[in-house]
Amino acid sequence: MAKVFLPKGTRDLMPATMNRRLMVIDTVREVFSRYGFEPLETPAFERIETLTGKYGDEGEKLMFRILKRGEGGQRGEVDQALRYDLTVPLARVVAMNPGLPLPFKRSQIQPVWRADRPQRGRFREFYQCDVDTIGTDNPIADAECIAVVHDSLMALGLHDFTIRVNHRELLKSLAEAIGATDQEVSLLQALDKLDKVGRDGVNNELMERGFTPQQATSLWDYLDGEPIPGGAKAESELKTILELALALGVDPDRVKIDRTLARGLDYYTGPVFETVLNGNYSGSISGGGRYDGLIGMFSGKGDVPAVGVSLGIERIFMLMEELGLMPNSTTSTQVWATVFSHETQSATLEAATILRQAGIRVQVSTRVGKLAKQFKDAANRDVPFVLVCGPDEAANGTVVLKNLATGEQTTGQPSQIASELSCK
Amino acid sequence: MAKVFLPKGTRDLMPATMNRRLMVIDTVREVFSRYGFEPLETPAFERIETLTGKYGDEGEKLMFRILKRGEGGQRGEVDQALRYDLTVPLARVVAMNPGLPLPFKRSQIQPVWRADRPQRGRFREFYQCDVDTIGTDNPIADAECIAVVHDSLMALGLHDFTIRVNHRELLKSLAEAIGATDQEVSLLQALDKLDKVGRDGVNNELMERGFTPQQATSLWDYLDGEPIPGGAKAESELKTILELALALGVDPDRVKIDRTLARGLDYYTGPVFETVLNGNYSGSISGGGRYDGLIGMFSGKGDVPAVGVSLGIERIFMLMEELGLMPNSTTSTQVWATVFSHETQSATLEAATILRQAGIRVQVSTRVGKLAKQFKDAANRDVPFVLVCGPDEAANGTVVLKNLATGEQTTGQPSQIASELSCK
Repeated sequence: MAKVFLPKGTRDLMPATMNRRLMVIDTVREVFSRYGFEPLETPAFERIETLTGKYGDEGEKLMFRILKRGEGGQRGEVDQALRYDLTVPLARVVAMNPGLPLPFKRSQIQPVWRADRPQRGRFREFYQCDVDTIGTDNPIADAECIAVVHDSLMALGLHDFTIRVNHRELLKSLAEAIGATDQEVSLLQALDKLDKVGRDGVNNELMERGFTPQQATSLWDYLDGEPIPGGAKAESELKTILELALALGVDPDRVKIDRTLARGLDYYTGPVFETVLNGNYSGSISGGGRYDGLIGMFSGKGDVPAVGVSLGIERIFMLMEELGLMPNSTTSTQVWATVFSHETQSATLEAATILRQAGIRVQVSTRVGKLAKQFKDAANRDVPFVLVCGPDEAANGTVVLKNLATGEQTTGQPSQIASELSCK
Repeated sequence: MAKVFLPKGTRDLMPATMNRRLMVIDTVREVFSRYGFEPLETPAFERIETLTGKYGDEGEKLMFRILKRGEGGQRGEVDQALRYDLTVPLARVVAMNPGLPLPFKRSQIQPVWRADRPQRGRFREFYQCDVDTIGTDNPIADAECIAVVHDSLMALGLHDFTIRVNHRELLKSLAEAIGATDQEVSLLQALDKLDKVGRDGVNNELMERGFTPQQATSLWDYLDGEPIPGGAKAESELKTILELALALGVDPDRVKIDRTLARGLDYYTGPVFETVLNGNYSGSISGGGRYDGLIGMFSGKGDVPAVGVSLGIERIFMLMEELGLMPNSTTSTQVWATVFSHETQSATLEAATILRQAGIRVQVSTRVGKLAKQFKDAANRDVPFVLVCGPDEAANGTVVLKNLATGEQTTGQPSQIASELSCK
């Protein structure tokens, strides 16, 4: 075998990266479960007919299709494709399990696959991280979407964020109010660029799209706070959701109603949420909303109320790296146990065992002797402590623990060393 | 959309199952990391040429092949396939990263895909759970394979097991010793059935395969402990590994040398391990060994020493269910917070928030009023505690916590209830 390569647009998640990702995932999983969102996993692939017609032409092109096994495959027939998101599989699960106690609250943290053109920070395999509540229109469920995002980001140390909230019906009323009922989608596509191009830019965009200057003026009046005719019900729903979110401990400075928030129009039917980091960060780190039509479309039983939110977990990993919120160390190993000589090896292993039984993470050197090299091995791997058990220590049942950062040394029985380390 | 189905041979891992699986995975991951095995993840698919020629004809038939995107795919061309095991991807990672500090110790817990005929307890998507040490022939690495299996099973409560250990070279010497050098594979295929058919069965098998009665007699003499000519080096290696394993805390009653253990001949080059539950359980729950040839085959740089072991994690999930070692509860939610009325709702949410901030897992009912139904919801979902906040409680800032199993009730401020629950 000569050269080996990764598939295009994919990556290996090496231990230094994985340790950090697992820490983030454990943290958000814990937050999710505090709200009663329990973990679900679905298969990596779905039947092709489950996925077809759900993601538009563009999505369908990006799907990874799997050949039939056996003869059909030899003729190029396809019967399955890799998961493209976590929402369609959820809808399938709900449709297939009519006896599921409702509301069904699930979290799902799994990779999805899209054959997008690879670019920096964008991969063909990436994790999605969703929570959804199926089967209730109680606004508590909407408020919990805001609260889990709030609590997750706070727990991860990403404190400087704003959760923007809007309502699909309010956008509809807005379009009606400026006499653009038929151009609602066009209006919102223009509005969606506000963050990037500012008011003047949106105005230009509106003119290009055939809106009148009067419509534009009227639009900004509404966006600046003038009551939108027909929007009272949606306004009141948003108010309720925000009150509930505050009762759930959401910081009032970190959530705001934003009438300009458009977000995924064809899909959402009620409140929509989007979270951005404050400052010069483009793009969102979380998004979601109420989508009462989608699940029912699957089960064929009319609308099933549903609301959910997705944490942009890949984006969050990257931002946490950039902002220095990840642990410095690239390893989870705490102690590098050196092997002084073949004679002291078993004393070293026994000491390592006592440390491990106390929960300490110990790697035993597979190099024997040449302690300086073994110290270098530990330092190269970012392991903070080195353990030495020479002939004297082996004879009197002690070990020496050295802190590589401070140079500080402690000598003691392995159990003493273990309890000292446990307190750090 | 009318009917929806899962792909053949796959399953959804619903929350009750996932909670248990995550508990098991967290436990073994913790054991792995105590030995310095750090997590790796590789992409779900590999380039087809990475996988071709690695799993034999049978394996190749069972592979899920992915169509090229774009025109090639329309012609039925394939460029990738789903991961079939975790060892070939590991070999690719090592070959692609020549600067990796050795020994490279990695754990990997990810699904693999094989289009086997589905049957009870066998799926086309299933998790594998491997640890491997690449780049050292130090027998500590072999001993650690035994120790991590030992510690993992102990930590999971699967105490009644035996780790059988043998050496590939010893089997080779054995074949030579009975004059069957050319029939080594045949000999070991016969021997492999010992557990199922007993000595008489193996004797019959040997006769059918053309061995002589003298060879059979000689075989049993060696298996009963007579020194095998030319086997001294392998014997001594096994002895060293066992001594090291005991120094690592492995219980001597749970590991034994077993000269009949064959296991994956074409692959392994040194010590081999297999773990069985004692009693009437067929099949192993862990297996592994040293395979110094495989990694080098990939990198094209000659032998690279490697040793690893795989926990049969799907089998372990099933056995733990059967043996009652999984938690009784199907949910991780601890408290079901009822909503007495719309008036008391925000008091309930605030109480739930205080509990959550103390780390308690609380689901708030989306039903309002009709407390009896809400209690039933909690009981149906196995949630152990119910929280009630009626008008009196809301007025004086307390809540009532009811233990559904014992009927016991406690009234107190939410913070008091939280600290009581934290101690349980």
